[in-house]
Amino acid sequence: MTRLAGLDTPAAIVNTARMQANIQRMQTRMNELGVRFRPHVKTSKCLPVVHAQLAAGAQGITVSTLKEAEQFFAAGIGDILYAVGITAAKLPKVLALRRQGCDLKIIADNAAAADAIAAFGKEHGETFEVWIEVDCDGHRSGIRPDEKDRLVDLARRLAEGGMRLGGVMTHAGSSYELDTPEALAALAEQERAGCVQAAEHLRGAGLPCPGVSVGSTPTALHAQNLAGVTEVRAGVYVFFDLVMHNVGVCRTDDIALSVLTTVIGHQTDKGWAIVDAGWMAMSRDRGTAKQRRDFGYGQVCAVNGTVLPGYVMSGANQEHGIISREGDPDDRIAERFPVGTQLRILPNHACATGAQFPEYHALSGDGTTEVWPRFYGW
Amino acid sequence: MTRLAGLDTPAAIVNTARMQANIQRMQTRMNELGVRFRPHVKTSKCLPVVHAQLAAGAQGITVSTLKEAEQFFAAGIGDILYAVGITAAKLPKVLALRRQGCDLKIIADNAAAADAIAAFGKEHGETFEVWIEVDCDGHRSGIRPDEKDRLVDLARRLAEGGMRLGGVMTHAGSSYELDTPEALAALAEQERAGCVQAAEHLRGAGLPCPGVSVGSTPTALHAQNLAGVTEVRAGVYVFFDLVMHNVGVCRTDDIALSVLTTVIGHQTDKGWAIVDAGWMAMSRDRGTAKQRRDFGYGQVCAVNGTVLPGYVMSGANQEHGIISREGDPDDRIAERFPVGTQLRILPNHACATGAQFPEYHALSGDGTTEVWPRFYGW
Repeated sequence: MTRLAGLDTPAAIVNTARMQANIQRMQTRMNELGVRFRPHVKTSKCLPVVHAQLAAGAQGITVSTLKEAEQFFAAGIGDILYAVGITAAKLPKVLALRRQGCDLKIIADNAAAADAIAAFGKEHGETFEVWIEVDCDGHRSGIRPDEKDRLVDLARRLAEGGMRLGGVMTHAGSSYELDTPEALAALAEQERAGCVQAAEHLRGAGLPCPGVSVGSTPTALHAQNLAGVTEVRAGVYVFFDLVMHNVGVCRTDDIALSVLTTVIGHQTDKGWAIVDAGWMAMSRDRGTAKQRRDFGYGQVCAVNGTVLPGYVMSGANQEHGIISREGDPDDRIAERFPVGTQLRILPNHACATGAQFPEYHALSGDGTTEVWPRFYGW
Repeated sequence: MTRLAGLDTPAAIVNTARMQANIQRMQTRMNELGVRFRPHVKTSKCLPVVHAQLAAGAQGITVSTLKEAEQFFAAGIGDILYAVGITAAKLPKVLALRRQGCDLKIIADNAAAADAIAAFGKEHGETFEVWIEVDCDGHRSGIRPDEKDRLVDLARRLAEGGMRLGGVMTHAGSSYELDTPEALAALAEQERAGCVQAAEHLRGAGLPCPGVSVGSTPTALHAQNLAGVTEVRAGVYVFFDLVMHNVGVCRTDDIALSVLTTVIGHQTDKGWAIVDAGWMAMSRDRGTAKQRRDFGYGQVCAVNGTVLPGYVMSGANQEHGIISREGDPDDRIAERFPVGTQLRILPNHACATGAQFPEYHALSGDGTTEVWPRFYGW
């Protein structure tokens, strides 16, 4: 069992106690609100993480790629929602998974996709379960809740084409741009109300709409009631990150993912320490740049995880990071962080940073680590 | 042999004719300037690409991680410069590679690293070849050319510790911030002159300094003379990208890497087409944001590679990209790019975008593709 001091750097470290607390916090909240919880596994793409989510009470998973569906189905997880609009070219893979017994659900928001699903399903004698994507906040895909005719037309094309209507689903992705509890609670209500309204349009037209699925990490944690909702989806809550800290849904001490790095040099006159984690390790995600607090490429912590206030990764090349003190250059940085010092960097965006690594090192309370493989690609 | 229409999307496409032309352009320039060329393989991490560089005349490779050294040495490439400052913890891997016959050279810019190399080399009876890193433009690591005492002290620690001095090396990374031929030529001369000056300090102190290694793609292509330089390093030239286009060292028609994607929906009233390549495929690199022309997450091209002027990926979520026309929303975008349309997106930064994919699809002039695996991680 390797300790942090024995790991090659850069390395992605998961604090398992924090991760478990994050999982428990979300699951408890969902239980209180009386909804099923279907975590989005795009954040971790890692089986031990997803097993921990399911063990805590999650029911099924959400995926962002068919590769995630294939990998998690191969690991025995069968209840899967693929939450990116389907196109005709991807239907053979969906069919193959369903034929193997995977309860893979797909989504659509346009007539071309619906017609392609119905035609392909008919051709292959397969009843695809399709959810209709609703646009509750204008940030991306979906049909607006007030577009009753488009919603009903789409559902009717699917139903009349012999497909199963699973329900309606939405994602309030604009929640990432907010930073007050009031605004988050209001958006959570907008997300809920919009998705329920879409469901009611379908039901009012005599169409089945058993499921109503909503979610984003910030709205899930700020919803006051979820009347009419059957399930919630969220992903980044499992690790949290600096963007979520700025949104106001976690503390830095809740962030379960960090990048372990080693000091390789200094530019003393500039107050820089140079480390061996650059943007390839942190990702190029600068999600905090437009928020109330810009952490550069990440918040610097001691190797034991203690936040070092004011020290951030202020710049990054592919395999070099520049560590400096914000506003007030530290002319003794070479003494503070000598060559060889290990540091840990909290990331702006856990989904982006994790994706740069073939594996996480899961850090237990006793200081030992275990390799948790993760995958990437499509 | 799969054609583009048969590929799952998103996919990373390499236009092999453009890549070969880029390789030939750089190698011809280096031959004219009378220097060896040691390509930086961090851009591609892909054996067929590196084989093409070596076949054109490159001598040895530059790597950004020890994993690159291990992978390319296993493929038979023995002359390798690891161009990130070494620390003690990485020396066992360096030793293992050298014991297997790899001519792996390392770099250092500080006394702690030099002493660690000498101590470890002595302990294991290994003469490491060490290059001293020079800071020619203040952008990152290295010792400034005017810091004669530091340069000589560092070289002396290595030589007296029994290590072999390979030479001095520098990288004018600040060239990415320029965009005129005059400024690039001036920085190329600054890079050359600074590195040669550092070499002369060592030689003047009676220390060996056989190698003088410089380079970045923009300075390599704008150097007017390289007197005193023995080798040049550059990486991104092999594919080029939109950042390099803005710097002024390539045309969009030289860019050999693109991301193949499929239209999955629209928001017609906003003039958006939604595609299945988001920031996970493009990377979060927004390198053109601060340049004279901001391409968002990339320039949109037809599937045949023709640039579609004005259409860019203006926004991105993890697996969704938003395609729109700059300045003038296209209210007929759903007719222009119907659901199912394949598009190709030129990336801001080829090193970052390529890293998101487990393989490239190498596209030949006859329209067929071949899988070229690439690796990631450390």
